[in-house]
Amino acid sequence: MKRLFKNGLVVNVFTDEVERVDVLVENERIIGVGKYEEAEADVIEDVSDKVLCPGFIDGHIHIESTMLTPAELAKVCVKHGTTSIVADPHEIANVCGTMGIAYMLQSSEELPMTVYMMLPSCVPSTPFDETGAVLQAEDLRAFYENERVLGLGEVMNYPGVLAGQQDVLRKIEDAYAYGRIVNGHAPLLSGKALDHYIAAGITDDHECSEPEEAKERIRKGQWVMIRQGTAARNLEALLPLFEEPWSHRCMLVTDDRHPADLIEEGHIDHIIRMAVKAGKSAITAIRMATIQAASYYNLRQVGAIAPGYVADMLILDDLESVKVRDVYRHGVKVVDKGNIISFQDAVVPMEIKGAVENSFHIEELKLSDFSIEPKGKRCRVIQVQASQLLTEERIAELDFEKNNGIDVERDILKLAVAERHHNTGHIGIGFVSGIGMKRGAIASSVSHDSHNLIVIGTNEEDMLLAANRIRNIGGGNVVAADGRILAEMPLPIAGLMSELSAQEVAKQNRAVREAVHTLGVANGVEPFMNMAFISLPVIPALKMTTLGLVNVNTQEMVPVFVDDEQ
Amino acid sequence: MKRLFKNGLVVNVFTDEVERVDVLVENERIIGVGKYEEAEADVIEDVSDKVLCPGFIDGHIHIESTMLTPAELAKVCVKHGTTSIVADPHEIANVCGTMGIAYMLQSSEELPMTVYMMLPSCVPSTPFDETGAVLQAEDLRAFYENERVLGLGEVMNYPGVLAGQQDVLRKIEDAYAYGRIVNGHAPLLSGKALDHYIAAGITDDHECSEPEEAKERIRKGQWVMIRQGTAARNLEALLPLFEEPWSHRCMLVTDDRHPADLIEEGHIDHIIRMAVKAGKSAITAIRMATIQAASYYNLRQVGAIAPGYVADMLILDDLESVKVRDVYRHGVKVVDKGNIISFQDAVVPMEIKGAVENSFHIEELKLSDFSIEPKGKRCRVIQVQASQLLTEERIAELDFEKNNGIDVERDILKLAVAERHHNTGHIGIGFVSGIGMKRGAIASSVSHDSHNLIVIGTNEEDMLLAANRIRNIGGGNVVAADGRILAEMPLPIAGLMSELSAQEVAKQNRAVREAVHTLGVANGVEPFMNMAFISLPVIPALKMTTLGLVNVNTQEMVPVFVDDEQ
Repeated sequence: MKRLFKNGLVVNVFTDEVERVDVLVENERIIGVGKYEEAEADVIEDVSDKVLCPGFIDGHIHIESTMLTPAELAKVCVKHGTTSIVADPHEIANVCGTMGIAYMLQSSEELPMTVYMMLPSCVPSTPFDETGAVLQAEDLRAFYENERVLGLGEVMNYPGVLAGQQDVLRKIEDAYAYGRIVNGHAPLLSGKALDHYIAAGITDDHECSEPEEAKERIRKGQWVMIRQGTAARNLEALLPLFEEPWSHRCMLVTDDRHPADLIEEGHIDHIIRMAVKAGKSAITAIRMATIQAASYYNLRQVGAIAPGYVADMLILDDLESVKVRDVYRHGVKVVDKGNIISFQDAVVPMEIKGAVENSFHIEELKLSDFSIEPKGKRCRVIQVQASQLLTEERIAELDFEKNNGIDVERDILKLAVAERHHNTGHIGIGFVSGIGMKRGAIASSVSHDSHNLIVIGTNEEDMLLAANRIRNIGGGNVVAADGRILAEMPLPIAGLMSELSAQEVAKQNRAVREAVHTLGVANGVEPFMNMAFISLPVIPALKMTTLGLVNVNTQEMVPVFVDDEQ
Repeated sequence: MKRLFKNGLVVNVFTDEVERVDVLVENERIIGVGKYEEAEADVIEDVSDKVLCPGFIDGHIHIESTMLTPAELAKVCVKHGTTSIVADPHEIANVCGTMGIAYMLQSSEELPMTVYMMLPSCVPSTPFDETGAVLQAEDLRAFYENERVLGLGEVMNYPGVLAGQQDVLRKIEDAYAYGRIVNGHAPLLSGKALDHYIAAGITDDHECSEPEEAKERIRKGQWVMIRQGTAARNLEALLPLFEEPWSHRCMLVTDDRHPADLIEEGHIDHIIRMAVKAGKSAITAIRMATIQAASYYNLRQVGAIAPGYVADMLILDDLESVKVRDVYRHGVKVVDKGNIISFQDAVVPMEIKGAVENSFHIEELKLSDFSIEPKGKRCRVIQVQASQLLTEERIAELDFEKNNGIDVERDILKLAVAERHHNTGHIGIGFVSGIGMKRGAIASSVSHDSHNLIVIGTNEEDMLLAANRIRNIGGGNVVAADGRILAEMPLPIAGLMSELSAQEVAKQNRAVREAVHTLGVANGVEPFMNMAFISLPVIPALKMTTLGLVNVNTQEMVPVFVDDEQ
């Protein structure tokens, strides 16, 4: 079947030109760009004065952070012109191991958006993490047989690379042996340490927050992924990269993006629009989001409107609004006037589906699980700060006679992290400050990177209620107070993802976040966000794991009670 | 072993900058680019005020056209800064088939220059050609196991691509299946036919002679190889490509280059110098000749001075002269102050060596082999023109009573093409005009693309002498007159290549060309050049094969005698 797009303004990502030419597509391929007659095609699409550009590619995203299945994510992204994403299933791999990766691959087959995969390189992210699985080099190898696997995901373990740790180096070697790419993640690394990290074969970074940081990487041969997600928003700072000589070594990525933002602002199209509003060339931004991402990942014949290229094409109203009207993917129309054309979900084998949908392996919690035996008065308290992942260690004198040490007036709440993968019964108990909750409790299974069950509360009864609710619904976010559940967002897939649509997940997420604020939490504080990183012992300074408190700076376990020391 | 290059001016091919930085090399890899201390290395090279740039890559060359073995070619090219070439062994494959490709791979191992290979796609180039071998898709496949094989060589058979011929399409599919590149060759193809050709998966071209021709290809996604060889010299016309947006999709190649030019002018360095003299940026030219060629061929960590990259580096006096002083290849010094450091030749297995050194399979010729039975008077004569590969058909009335139709005064000489691969006894006999030889004969085994034995003479005795001399020395160029050999250049390897050095081959070649002119050939006429293409029935209009005359325009065999028609 031949389809002729007549008279469009075609963005040429090889030359930065916009040409008024016809585009002839046969089945999934573009076969002609130039002057073609209507008689040469079976179907004519009059695209006069509309802009045609290649489908957008998100060069680095964690699907789990959208809380959507690949299919539901596709529904919202494709409308915004994204025809390919490169996803790192790091989160689900921490919960379900290779089954999690298999689930992501299987559930993303045959979607109207191509989902490429990078294999998670750091599961677990630290030795303190009690994850659902430990992935070593040999566990990953078989996945390279899948053509959609483009390489090794972000090598966050840069201390391991610099120290020459064998397992991480072996994973990198494997990616090269299979001819694949190795993603980087090394914020603020510079100079000789950066040289060392890059020389290990790590060829991109998406953590740049300043132009000079990005320019050093480009000079040293890395590709820079300009990230604009929900939490991390680097576009504005990195606008200088849209100029030469930098732009040819950049691409656009979202990394972590919430469904509400996807719905309201968009995806890669939103980043392009922002760049245009800031006075940058739309064509430069489109080039970054198409041919450059494709070239970097060695995706041949993807990312351009040219003969032989896969017909992943967008019809935009114009280059100012970058508003996506129609989307063709592999030559098939998948978005019509802004509406996604329905498609069949991929069928995931029962064994894999069962594994990811039953990821909670923990006994029902009891009230006594939350108690802590007082061994003194002076305690280490995790001090969180609004919109920051960094925490501080605060020493406070607690009165264990009153509410088991919890002191709502001084904003000292109880914190528990319960191992939920292998039913070990491990539970880390301590105290946290900075949340400002006056009553009730919140619990979640989204707790980077090990995604154990985490609870913060003003009293142990509500903590128990919230935690067991999470367990019973197989994961999610829950808000409880005064013995009842106020709001919840179930995430039954690995405790990370919903099966609902982006709209419904966004709605549930809003309800949960609003419920938190009825508990007295100040506006501007997002406890679920803080809570999601309170258990990640790679970000300073004091974190809580299933095994207890970790001093991240010294990488040592420390007791809650200061007096208990040595 | 760590080697530190202190204080050089380093060309950054990612940013087009020149930075004064130190470069730290460990074994074959660059591991640091920045400020490094002498204590961090075992060996210090003070390169203050010298320019460091990546080793040059010739993106498309036929080694056979240099008449040198890979080792001898390396000796001359590496001195000029070439650390990698991408060679298409099309000529030797026409003679020796897969043994020829195997010879090229084996004899190019472990040289101070990396020799990558493209598999010849068109052996034979036409059905009229009686070659030493016919290479079908299945004959090529096994070679893809070799990592130095980067893809399928120039697909000259564009009519076959446009007509959907299965064997050529299968060869292209195979290259893609192995994740490799497909080189193009389609001079003057444009518009829809070019779209069709490109859509088949052919992603570059080195035959562009005009900027607009090149720009159309770049717009359509092809890479353009700017060629400056011995015969075809396109650089001057293509200088506009050194500007944006074109330069990022170009590389530099020589295609066919004679040893005298390599010695006297240089190789890729010569093209860069020419571009600089024409006012273009040396850095743009270096970028084309390094990272861009490497990126196109998916040679990872090649073509730049950056951490993780292979230490193929040149030390130049400056960016104006582009004079290569020292060359490091895989971190080892291979050229010191312009002098190549001697190296061990590769050992080629006897079986392969024997096959390419005994490529003449033809009985000794007899005088009667050159006779032609007169079937009339009006004959088709091949009319050649100085420095052109095109020929014309001229009709002349010949007197067969006198010198068997040869008429030196009217410049009508005898031409014979004898099949020499399978001893079939096939010999095409006819007449040629435009050479201007007054006495003697010349013969050669360099006769594109089938490389049969070709002879042109003023009398049959000297033709016999020259032809049998070629046979007896196993190939080469020979000039004979008055019953003796005046000059010769033996090419015993497949009848195409010498085992001597570039200097000696150039000397022999000069002697042969000078001897021709003692036979009355005017200056400016190069009969060996005309003769080399007189048997190639893809260039219009009238050509001679082992089976007789071919009208290239109609692609039909035609008899010598006009009266004999039908």
